[in-house]
Amino acid sequence: MHSIAQYPPPLSEDHLLSLSIQIQDWLLNHGSLIKDINTQTALELQSIYNELYCAVAEDEQWILSAIEDLLPIDPLAVALWKIHQEVKQLGGYVQPISAGIFRSDYMLQDENTDTNGEPSSIPHGSLKQVEFNTFSCAGASHANKIVDMHRHLARAGVYNANSTPSEDDTDSSQLIVPSNLPRNRNIETLAAGLASAHAAYGPPKSKVTSKTAVLIVIQDQVFNFNVADERPIEYALWDQDPPVPTYRLNFGDDTLEDTSLTATGELLFHPPWLNSTTPIEISVVYMRAGYEAHEYDKVGIRARLRLERSRAIKCPSLLAHIATFKKVQYALTRPGTLEHFLTPEKAAAVRATFVPMYPMDESPAGQEARKLATDPVLAEDYVLKPSLEGGGHNVYGDAIPDFLASQPPSKWGAYILMKRIPSPFAANMLMSSVGMNSGGVISELGVFGSCLWRTGGDGRPCEMLENSLAGWSFKTKHQYTEEISVVKGYGCFDTPLLV
Amino acid sequence: MHSIAQYPPPLSEDHLLSLSIQIQDWLLNHGSLIKDINTQTALELQSIYNELYCAVAEDEQWILSAIEDLLPIDPLAVALWKIHQEVKQLGGYVQPISAGIFRSDYMLQDENTDTNGEPSSIPHGSLKQVEFNTFSCAGASHANKIVDMHRHLARAGVYNANSTPSEDDTDSSQLIVPSNLPRNRNIETLAAGLASAHAAYGPPKSKVTSKTAVLIVIQDQVFNFNVADERPIEYALWDQDPPVPTYRLNFGDDTLEDTSLTATGELLFHPPWLNSTTPIEISVVYMRAGYEAHEYDKVGIRARLRLERSRAIKCPSLLAHIATFKKVQYALTRPGTLEHFLTPEKAAAVRATFVPMYPMDESPAGQEARKLATDPVLAEDYVLKPSLEGGGHNVYGDAIPDFLASQPPSKWGAYILMKRIPSPFAANMLMSSVGMNSGGVISELGVFGSCLWRTGGDGRPCEMLENSLAGWSFKTKHQYTEEISVVKGYGCFDTPLLV
Repeated sequence: MHSIAQYPPPLSEDHLLSLSIQIQDWLLNHGSLIKDINTQTALELQSIYNELYCAVAEDEQWILSAIEDLLPIDPLAVALWKIHQEVKQLGGYVQPISAGIFRSDYMLQDENTDTNGEPSSIPHGSLKQVEFNTFSCAGASHANKIVDMHRHLARAGVYNANSTPSEDDTDSSQLIVPSNLPRNRNIETLAAGLASAHAAYGPPKSKVTSKTAVLIVIQDQVFNFNVADERPIEYALWDQDPPVPTYRLNFGDDTLEDTSLTATGELLFHPPWLNSTTPIEISVVYMRAGYEAHEYDKVGIRARLRLERSRAIKCPSLLAHIATFKKVQYALTRPGTLEHFLTPEKAAAVRATFVPMYPMDESPAGQEARKLATDPVLAEDYVLKPSLEGGGHNVYGDAIPDFLASQPPSKWGAYILMKRIPSPFAANMLMSSVGMNSGGVISELGVFGSCLWRTGGDGRPCEMLENSLAGWSFKTKHQYTEEISVVKGYGCFDTPLLV
Repeated sequence: MHSIAQYPPPLSEDHLLSLSIQIQDWLLNHGSLIKDINTQTALELQSIYNELYCAVAEDEQWILSAIEDLLPIDPLAVALWKIHQEVKQLGGYVQPISAGIFRSDYMLQDENTDTNGEPSSIPHGSLKQVEFNTFSCAGASHANKIVDMHRHLARAGVYNANSTPSEDDTDSSQLIVPSNLPRNRNIETLAAGLASAHAAYGPPKSKVTSKTAVLIVIQDQVFNFNVADERPIEYALWDQDPPVPTYRLNFGDDTLEDTSLTATGELLFHPPWLNSTTPIEISVVYMRAGYEAHEYDKVGIRARLRLERSRAIKCPSLLAHIATFKKVQYALTRPGTLEHFLTPEKAAAVRATFVPMYPMDESPAGQEARKLATDPVLAEDYVLKPSLEGGGHNVYGDAIPDFLASQPPSKWGAYILMKRIPSPFAANMLMSSVGMNSGGVISELGVFGSCLWRTGGDGRPCEMLENSLAGWSFKTKHQYTEEISVVKGYGCFDTPLLV
């Protein structure tokens, strides 16, 4: 039995080959990692984060104040805010219930900040929030599958070179065995969350059909690279008892062509393959598209407007979408803000996950940030983030001053400056399309939340109808890689080993 | 609601695109087909066929008489028979129990032999056996997955252009809905069959280990294209309660390197990735390699010899392997032969699935066959089959005379001549890597059997310990394609629609 200090054990060529083949047969890339993280805190916090963002999403004035600096400069913010205004002018939102599938991302902050030492076998520290995603949160299905794969490979004993595989793993606290790998039920729980929203919608309101269904609005499906993440949730909805009929629809032209609004606001879906004229009334619109500025050309704006004006429950609401902007994340760090939305105890628990953040605008805090960001030495400890979703848009450390110099200062306000989280690294091996590489690695924990809330109206607080922890994802990247985005090739999905 | 006579209904471009995307997302090619086949008979027959082939596999003298003409000319027959002789010289087989995963293939024989008419929407006829496979039977997992896919697409309502999808399909006897698509549990049942064999082996007999496991012997796994068919059975064995540990091993060099025989015949597996010296005792050797002559070079012969000499239960035994030769299939058609192995009632039921077969040797029956096979007009109704496994080796109809002319008559004895099964065709659409094509299609039903038997010894009949129907596969090809092999690109896995 090897001790944790020897992790990862030296692997023979045979072992590597065998491992590589077994993983390829699962058709997904991954790494396996030991970390000693108090993840329980982050999991327990998720329902408070759900509550916080539902409250934020219901406070139009506060959101506007948080993002108004973006409106002259950020095309996605402009598009979304315009659609929001137009819905209000056209009679307002008709559906009082909204759904949310959120993901809060954390990294481990090293309590000893010396990141140049030897990799530790068991990193310690506390979890700090990297970002909070409210819209089109990806990775849940991949995370679920990778955990299933790691658990299978663990029971098959392919990791432990110094011990024969054991059928009962009760005596194996130091080994990579299934009982040390937490289960992951993301697909099941996210589908259950959408099924709840579907049930909350109730029977069809229009007179033209007896059928309701969930509609997943996606990016053009012929070239959609995300099918392996989206489809499992769709299949799991059909697997509910009774099945929740679920259809996919491209955001854009197809949305306008294949849906219609009744006079009373029901969203009707006309499956393009049906010759019959009987449509399906949409209970829940689950957005997996519409998170990039370029999607909001004239057609995209009309498509989103139709969805927002409809009676369907949106997952999430448009204001909840806007709450995903980094400017909102920053605004929540301002003194007293959390207490505006949460009890003092809950506010304190959330605040403990924050790292220092600054606006890059012309406010006093912004002026301070600009000093930090334009100084090559001071900038080292920061990351500059636009409000854009997805990886690949951040600027790290000493690259910030040059980047800012290339942009007119009038556009700096679209960014926020955030203290980097000095994360301890562990020694491990990652497998990607280029092969298997050993080295120091750093992980990010994503915690999924699922919720359903009813608007209070007229400034009254919203009512949480459902609020639950929905699962987690775990991504790992090489120590010197800045980004962690898996779809962009920087990171790998992973499973933590509990020791 | 469309009537069956209109099948397949005209599909709009939108419908085709949608269907194509949904199928691609299941990552497998398929076709969907209506057939009215009395499959029940074939399913019920399987346990009789299992019994027949177990009895055949225990009758060494009969097998030798069936294949002895092959020994001078067929390298695979020579290799296998030599290994059998060597096992006997070295002390004989030490394991009295054998396992079988068999597959009997059938086509529908049109009772009206006019195959040039219009495609019928519901073909009629009786099932005739194409061949019986005793070794390394493939396709069970693919068939299972394709049925799962068709059932999902059916419940999502993507097939029925003239009716909205229905959540309850009780009123939909004419529609493609899940209740009209039979379930397929191949993966589960084949794994259960191997798990039974594992249990029959019992605890380890050697003193060197406390662990037993199933060993799947495969073709070189780096380039193995069959992982999607083999791996699900392996995963399902691990999913048994308690798990049945299961490992894969390449046939050939790796077999010799990573296994050893104890003095008392136990087969020990030494996982190449383990540093420890504790091996695993193999309970069951499940062969998914060793079915091609080129695998029996010196190393291959030594590898197979080691497996056969071991105490592990072989799935199947070497003589059961030899029973897969077409010469055996022919020999069983000779008058009185079935009655040698089965009761008269069972023999009659089996014989009803036979079509006329001939040897191509110099016997009187062989002389008759040679006349048929060398006449371009008469040959039209026949197919010439070597004893080789897998598609791509048969010669059809008027191509037979030219083919035979290219071979020395001394080699003709390696073939058998079989009456072609005039199969009615249905109109349908098949999807493959080249796209979707409509046209007349013909299907083949494979029936899987799983069994476990104990040798009687000294000519006594064997004892059937388990004997069950294990599942089915359904393959469909275009009407004018001769071969149906899916891996070679001729056919598609499919699901029958019950009407």
